[in-house]
Amino acid sequence: MPSPTSLGEFDLIQKYFTRAVTRAALGVGDDCALFAPRPGMQLAVSSDMLVEGRHFLSTVLPERLGHKALAVNLSDLAACGAQPVAFTLALALPRVDEVFLAGFSRGLLALADAHGCELIGGDTTQGPLNICITVFGELPAGTALLRSGAQANDDIYVSGTVGDARLALEVFRGTLDVQGADFNTVRLAMECPQPRVALGLALRNVASGAIDVSDGLLGDLKHILRRSNVGATVNVDSVPRSQVLRALPTALQREFTLAGGDDYELVFTAAPNRASQVQAAAQQAGVAVTRIGQTQALPGLNLIDAAGRKVETNFGSFDHFKT
Amino acid sequence: MPSPTSLGEFDLIQKYFTRAVTRAALGVGDDCALFAPRPGMQLAVSSDMLVEGRHFLSTVLPERLGHKALAVNLSDLAACGAQPVAFTLALALPRVDEVFLAGFSRGLLALADAHGCELIGGDTTQGPLNICITVFGELPAGTALLRSGAQANDDIYVSGTVGDARLALEVFRGTLDVQGADFNTVRLAMECPQPRVALGLALRNVASGAIDVSDGLLGDLKHILRRSNVGATVNVDSVPRSQVLRALPTALQREFTLAGGDDYELVFTAAPNRASQVQAAAQQAGVAVTRIGQTQALPGLNLIDAAGRKVETNFGSFDHFKT
Repeated sequence: MPSPTSLGEFDLIQKYFTRAVTRAALGVGDDCALFAPRPGMQLAVSSDMLVEGRHFLSTVLPERLGHKALAVNLSDLAACGAQPVAFTLALALPRVDEVFLAGFSRGLLALADAHGCELIGGDTTQGPLNICITVFGELPAGTALLRSGAQANDDIYVSGTVGDARLALEVFRGTLDVQGADFNTVRLAMECPQPRVALGLALRNVASGAIDVSDGLLGDLKHILRRSNVGATVNVDSVPRSQVLRALPTALQREFTLAGGDDYELVFTAAPNRASQVQAAAQQAGVAVTRIGQTQALPGLNLIDAAGRKVETNFGSFDHFKT
Repeated sequence: MPSPTSLGEFDLIQKYFTRAVTRAALGVGDDCALFAPRPGMQLAVSSDMLVEGRHFLSTVLPERLGHKALAVNLSDLAACGAQPVAFTLALALPRVDEVFLAGFSRGLLALADAHGCELIGGDTTQGPLNICITVFGELPAGTALLRSGAQANDDIYVSGTVGDARLALEVFRGTLDVQGADFNTVRLAMECPQPRVALGLALRNVASGAIDVSDGLLGDLKHILRRSNVGATVNVDSVPRSQVLRALPTALQREFTLAGGDDYELVFTAAPNRASQVQAAAQQAGVAVTRIGQTQALPGLNLIDAAGRKVETNFGSFDHFKT
């Protein structure tokens, strides 16, 4: 048997990533995995690639990184209202590091188990640290929540709170100072996002359009507006934020909530007569949802404050090639 | 409109990777892609991650790299006998390089079109060059060619020729000198492998077990033997090789054909009474297949030469963490 430091590609797949599958017909270990959606169901598929320095910092615990790598993919399923089924993992590692692999796989598989989403295949190789997950969900054909479904005069909602992950990033960058329990709170938001899978499922046939907030609330909302060919007015003071964030100057609160990035909440639209169903869905999913504005037929995104005054910003969306 | 050097993430996805889908219900551009296998069909899924210096050299033309990135994934579908349907692409790039992207997407999409395999989603980000493709094929439930299906006394076959890709790699490494048309031949084998999709499809219900040769013929054959709980005897002189490879000393021919890696041919097993069906499948697919040995009940892999003498080697399988 190889010593821990000489574990090869096949050994480490076997040791850390091979588990019995219950739903798939065939899991890790052959040229392909085999599975099928249940009859009448459609597959929702999403791929996300995470790179050190772009999507996570070198300071993150391996267990949290494993969690986050899957969480950001589950968040895409949530935004479509799909039930997680399975995923593949491709992993490039600078070297075989068993401490890293043990923590990473523990965090990854714990979240996978929590959502009944099984690891069915993938790849490992030597190279600069890179994590690529492709996730599969299922949903009845024709029920997916899409970016293109918003209508004029829909209400706009966001789940949970936004902005904490960006605040944590700024603390790591050294531009802000937050300590103790407050720092732990925002660090957890950055490193351990909770994908809103239950909310996405509950919003099927209730919401008209949806997207997950990964690149910043306004930037991601704009994808809905563009695809749906509508405009919107958002009350920037109504955007939900944590007590920790409320301690910051207003300008920073606005920047982090509106254009922070890495939030993995859902922003979605629903007709006004769906308001009670939206709140019922939120209660069922165990997460708050807050109305932050309304769509309109006229294109463009207008921002107002609590007093109804126009707010000017030039917040763009996070771009992985520009920030 | 942004200048070429300021193309952002969304622009470059739009410009190089967004095309209408014909088979999927929804392609690139939302949180998830949506599709379903045809009724009664199972999905075969495989992910491969390609890293510079491990899976390709910096000297490769972008167009060939695009081809190869998809080819190695289609080769996994071929090994299962699955019909390609769709794929996702996740791409980390050091910078937005339009010359690279134009060539890469051209090579990628040309091979995709040749196999009716449509790009339905993915991700782009800034980072060390990394290409991760997840490919989806379909096949009637229960017909997949598996590593575990070989029986004792089956014939062992390999498609095409093996060893040229490794010869090309050694030329690039400077350990061997091959020039002119001969170099182009072996370089093409390394940079533009042709996935044996048609052969895999034709071998359904004919072959008993199969795998694609990516890490070296013997190493990959051993996966079949281990999974099928059988042994084998292989005649090393019968392993098919190109005229270019035949010009090398016998020891190098053996090393490159038996443990070269990067071949993307199929090695498979079939009962002796299937021999004529195997040849018919090869003819249908337009690729030669050569019988190179036989499985046996007794575990272990024995190598013999054309005269029936025992051959000793210590060729292992290519390991992405060890070579």
